[in-house]
Amino acid sequence: METSEPSSSTRNGTSIPGTHPGDRYIRHVASSDLPLREIAPGRFVAELAEPASAFGKAWYRLRRALIGRPLRTAEAAHERIGKAKALAVFSSDALSSTAYATEEILRILILAGSVAYAFVLPIGLAIVLLLAIVVFSYRQTIRAYPHGGGTYIVTKDNLGTLPGLLAAAALLSDYVLTVAVSISAGVAAITSAFPSLYPWRVELAVAAIVLLTIANLRGVRESATIFMLPTYAFIASIGVLILLGLASLAGIGPTPHPVRYEAPPPSSPLTLFLVLRAFASGSTALTGVEAISNGVPAFKEPQAENARTTLLAMGLILGSLFSGITLLSYHFHLIPSERETIVSQLARTLVDTSPFYYVVQAATAFILFLAANTAFADFPRLGYFLARDRFLPRQFRFQGDRLAFSTGILTLGILNSLLVIVGHASVSALIPLYAVGVFTAFTLSQTSMVVHWWRSGQGRWRRLPWHSLLINGIGAIATGIVTIVVVVTKFTHGAWMVVLLIPALIGMMVAIHRHYVSVADQLRVAPEEARRRLRLVPRRSIAVVPVASLNRASLTALAYARSIADDITAVHVATEPESGEALQQRWREAGLTIPLVIVDSPYRELLGPLVAVIEKIHREKGAPLITVVIPEFVTAHWWERLLHTQTAWRLRRALVQIPDLAITMVPYHLEE
Amino acid sequence: METSEPSSSTRNGTSIPGTHPGDRYIRHVASSDLPLREIAPGRFVAELAEPASAFGKAWYRLRRALIGRPLRTAEAAHERIGKAKALAVFSSDALSSTAYATEEILRILILAGSVAYAFVLPIGLAIVLLLAIVVFSYRQTIRAYPHGGGTYIVTKDNLGTLPGLLAAAALLSDYVLTVAVSISAGVAAITSAFPSLYPWRVELAVAAIVLLTIANLRGVRESATIFMLPTYAFIASIGVLILLGLASLAGIGPTPHPVRYEAPPPSSPLTLFLVLRAFASGSTALTGVEAISNGVPAFKEPQAENARTTLLAMGLILGSLFSGITLLSYHFHLIPSERETIVSQLARTLVDTSPFYYVVQAATAFILFLAANTAFADFPRLGYFLARDRFLPRQFRFQGDRLAFSTGILTLGILNSLLVIVGHASVSALIPLYAVGVFTAFTLSQTSMVVHWWRSGQGRWRRLPWHSLLINGIGAIATGIVTIVVVVTKFTHGAWMVVLLIPALIGMMVAIHRHYVSVADQLRVAPEEARRRLRLVPRRSIAVVPVASLNRASLTALAYARSIADDITAVHVATEPESGEALQQRWREAGLTIPLVIVDSPYRELLGPLVAVIEKIHREKGAPLITVVIPEFVTAHWWERLLHTQTAWRLRRALVQIPDLAITMVPYHLEE
Repeated sequence: METSEPSSSTRNGTSIPGTHPGDRYIRHVASSDLPLREIAPGRFVAELAEPASAFGKAWYRLRRALIGRPLRTAEAAHERIGKAKALAVFSSDALSSTAYATEEILRILILAGSVAYAFVLPIGLAIVLLLAIVVFSYRQTIRAYPHGGGTYIVTKDNLGTLPGLLAAAALLSDYVLTVAVSISAGVAAITSAFPSLYPWRVELAVAAIVLLTIANLRGVRESATIFMLPTYAFIASIGVLILLGLASLAGIGPTPHPVRYEAPPPSSPLTLFLVLRAFASGSTALTGVEAISNGVPAFKEPQAENARTTLLAMGLILGSLFSGITLLSYHFHLIPSERETIVSQLARTLVDTSPFYYVVQAATAFILFLAANTAFADFPRLGYFLARDRFLPRQFRFQGDRLAFSTGILTLGILNSLLVIVGHASVSALIPLYAVGVFTAFTLSQTSMVVHWWRSGQGRWRRLPWHSLLINGIGAIATGIVTIVVVVTKFTHGAWMVVLLIPALIGMMVAIHRHYVSVADQLRVAPEEARRRLRLVPRRSIAVVPVASLNRASLTALAYARSIADDITAVHVATEPESGEALQQRWREAGLTIPLVIVDSPYRELLGPLVAVIEKIHREKGAPLITVVIPEFVTAHWWERLLHTQTAWRLRRALVQIPDLAITMVPYHLEE
Repeated sequence: METSEPSSSTRNGTSIPGTHPGDRYIRHVASSDLPLREIAPGRFVAELAEPASAFGKAWYRLRRALIGRPLRTAEAAHERIGKAKALAVFSSDALSSTAYATEEILRILILAGSVAYAFVLPIGLAIVLLLAIVVFSYRQTIRAYPHGGGTYIVTKDNLGTLPGLLAAAALLSDYVLTVAVSISAGVAAITSAFPSLYPWRVELAVAAIVLLTIANLRGVRESATIFMLPTYAFIASIGVLILLGLASLAGIGPTPHPVRYEAPPPSSPLTLFLVLRAFASGSTALTGVEAISNGVPAFKEPQAENARTTLLAMGLILGSLFSGITLLSYHFHLIPSERETIVSQLARTLVDTSPFYYVVQAATAFILFLAANTAFADFPRLGYFLARDRFLPRQFRFQGDRLAFSTGILTLGILNSLLVIVGHASVSALIPLYAVGVFTAFTLSQTSMVVHWWRSGQGRWRRLPWHSLLINGIGAIATGIVTIVVVVTKFTHGAWMVVLLIPALIGMMVAIHRHYVSVADQLRVAPEEARRRLRLVPRRSIAVVPVASLNRASLTALAYARSIADDITAVHVATEPESGEALQQRWREAGLTIPLVIVDSPYRELLGPLVAVIEKIHREKGAPLITVVIPEFVTAHWWERLLHTQTAWRLRRALVQIPDLAITMVPYHLEE
């Protein structure tokens, strides 16, 4: 029976409800060394405390050194940024794709020989057109979702849960590949400038991923300013390069230094399929365009207006850079090479290996790493939303010491390290996997907007926002067609993996959801039932104590059993023929009155017979719940644990499967 | 207070002492499906039972298929064998070393060019002399230890514990290398006959080790007869080969088919050191000579006499085979090669690649695998003795399903797989490591015998058994000198590893011993103290229940706490700012009277604050032992466990370090 009401008896300056100060067992130990601060009776705030064990301390300090001091939940800050900063923060992913998009088009076209080369111009034009459609579509999204229209949320709102999960799965694959492709392209920019580093490209890529993982576990909050320099440096340096190239084209610029790589012999006929395949590769130039519409809440007021302007500016810059690079690559007839990127070739053509060449390469590498970094923010955030909606393991909800979503960040870091190792840090190997997720998400997002506008008319024909419907409708159709083109033309080159992965991810998320819902249903309890159940409990308890021999550890367990139970049985499994008699003998010598059951185990098995006899006693005693009291000794050093057989732990693991048992470990602490 | 005396109330044909048949909670469940057979009141015998879980069943069946049905402890059989069988069983190790000993001598001599080649004869003679000394020494041991004189036990008896451990460490290294060397030599016999298998030699060696491991886990009891064929086939075929060779030498045998490998250019001057190094390599011919003296209890009566005769016979056969192979290798001027063994070269010289050649190679490979197999019996048996004396982890004492010492067998299998992979299954790479342990054990064994005889005289000069003293004295001095020669000449070629390993092993065994003794001292309890302690226990209990939310699992834990304790505190750590208020609200709604302590955790940490508040309550309540009742839900499938954060388990791990806490897990079983 419960004997104490919540009350507050203060001692040592702190209080725990229900303490009896007159108790003979009270030990006068100050509680002030505990990392707890009392703020009200029965209410404490936990303070930071270093772990006690040597290993725990070392791990704690390593974490502090790597990811910094822990942050309070209340320290989460929200920065509001202007248009110039926002362009830097949200565009790195989109702009950086100009570093590889043209090259990937050329890499496909060149398979059909020089005659196909000219197709780069119409393909480039088509992509710029597509970009314009997508930019205008997302300007609509910003207007409709001024609080941030992430594709997962927008799709789930408008199309329902399953399309929402399709969008989520597509985005997850998109984010993973954003990291892998951007890091690989960034490393390619470095190894183009320093060819001697080429054999180390996989190591460099993995190192970059590890650095990004650590930086993000630290929680890179102060990032807006950090983004400014590399993004604008990239825009400026590529801009200058394109102007120089156009001048040279007009005959007024510097004399070009021709860079000539051998074109491989044609291996494929020039077919419509090949042209579409090249287009699909180039369409990766659009990746990241949606970032601004997700980030509206970070803008200064008027948020939506500023975000729409920034998106338009970004579209113009991206379109110009991509057109410029594509046009000049065509003009100088640059041939894609394993060893040197097209941007590096273009820069060398125009400025040779002057200091400016290295500026271009550095700016390119930097913005690509920043692009990877945006995925390190997006993936864990999406993971959090999915975990909150119970579609991913709840671990994705945890915020680490620095308020970062550690599980998502670590997952992304590990997946990408593997991906980069398997893909040998090659952009072209990863590109076919990339575009599927990106355009699936685009299509779902645009389709959602169509449904959104349709519903906003509330069924009345004349109230429908036709203008918006038209823009997003064109967007949905265009991106939908591109999705089909990408899947078909890239299927055998790797897209099949993503096509299989996405349904698998959806299936997994649905299964996870079903499990969590079922658990919640099973655990739910009404207040009145809780009260009733606790009132009905009899103060009556039955205990079973497995005993290996009569020693201090088993004696402590027996004494504990005495303190909680009226009915105790000791059980012994004799794995050696004599041990049963020996224990009975000692039992008699000590004059113990607790009944002792002995099970001979001729096959020397311990756990099976122990579980069987406990179950037998449980059935015969018939109590609703019986307690198995397991004596356990705790060694002073971890290595000493290897010298014991962890029977207590293995027994617990076996017993936990049996219903209606409470399992109590009574530790006996060994000294040195 | 205990309410029931041992009594026997039978129900369902079985009985558990202390059952109250009138209890309202009794469930009428038949216990007959449990794998227990009652043999007396409160006394059961466990029967074999298949595990219930699908995974457990699969594992159980795999084990049954691989290692056979479990054996009862009482099924351990002891076979007594005659001299002919005993020779087969105990000589495979010793005889098989003739397959590589001569080759290893030549491999060293050839370093000094052809001029050194002639030294093979005096070295061979020295080794035969050494063999004679060792054989006569061990005949003394058999006389003194008719119940089996294992080197570890003999040394410990006569020289004390530390020399005993030195012998044990030397023997452990000896046994490990017996497997590696024998398997490598056996594989070399196979690849000599089938050179196309040479690239697969490491895989073949590992496969052989895995097979031996499985065979020994099965418990190869019926082995005596199995040993007969290969051992006698080896003796016969090498014997025939030597006779053919001697006939050819006398000009009356077959015409030799010269086998010529290119001798490498001399790389070392011919020094005494080199000759001694060659001798040290060849001394591995003696490995395994001690086996018969360990195995005396397996002989038919008169045991000692039969064993002595068998040892002499074995010495003669070993001496003849070794001398014959050495003499003929010299005569035909065989050059050691990486690709073909000397025995294979000798056989091809005399009988070309006739069927008999393949018989010789097969018999050689077979006896070498048998030799490895003897180490699979010796190593676990020594491990058992050492574990029994508390110098090795107690896991080495366990007898598996088939009464084999599984831990030792698995340890040996794993160590040797690694050794063979690292050493590329090359005999010459392993030989320098081998002889150190063998001769250290010989020397200690012989020295022990000297002490034994000395003591047997009981201090009286004229009672001393001078004859035995002399024989074992010569043995001790000779093997001691060889040990020094081996260590010095092989030191830089690998013996240093063993020289470092042996003291490390001894140090480890001493540390393990100290730990076990200290644990036993700490746990020991006198009968009267046991009785007194159990009499003094008050029926009074204090419980703390960590609660994440008010659900069925935590309710079950709270109800359990009610059933065992008078004083309960629920604690909640609020890792999210709102969860504390929300729980308090639900607590009030349900009208629960159990006090609830809330700890806000601004750094989102769960375990640290929970441990701190439990410790705080523990200190303030001041009871000698308080119970932490942890609600835990058990998922229906293992994969679902990944979706939960195993807080219960992590909390237990943290709490087990705090003294005077009993930790109770109250499982709540989830359905599908």
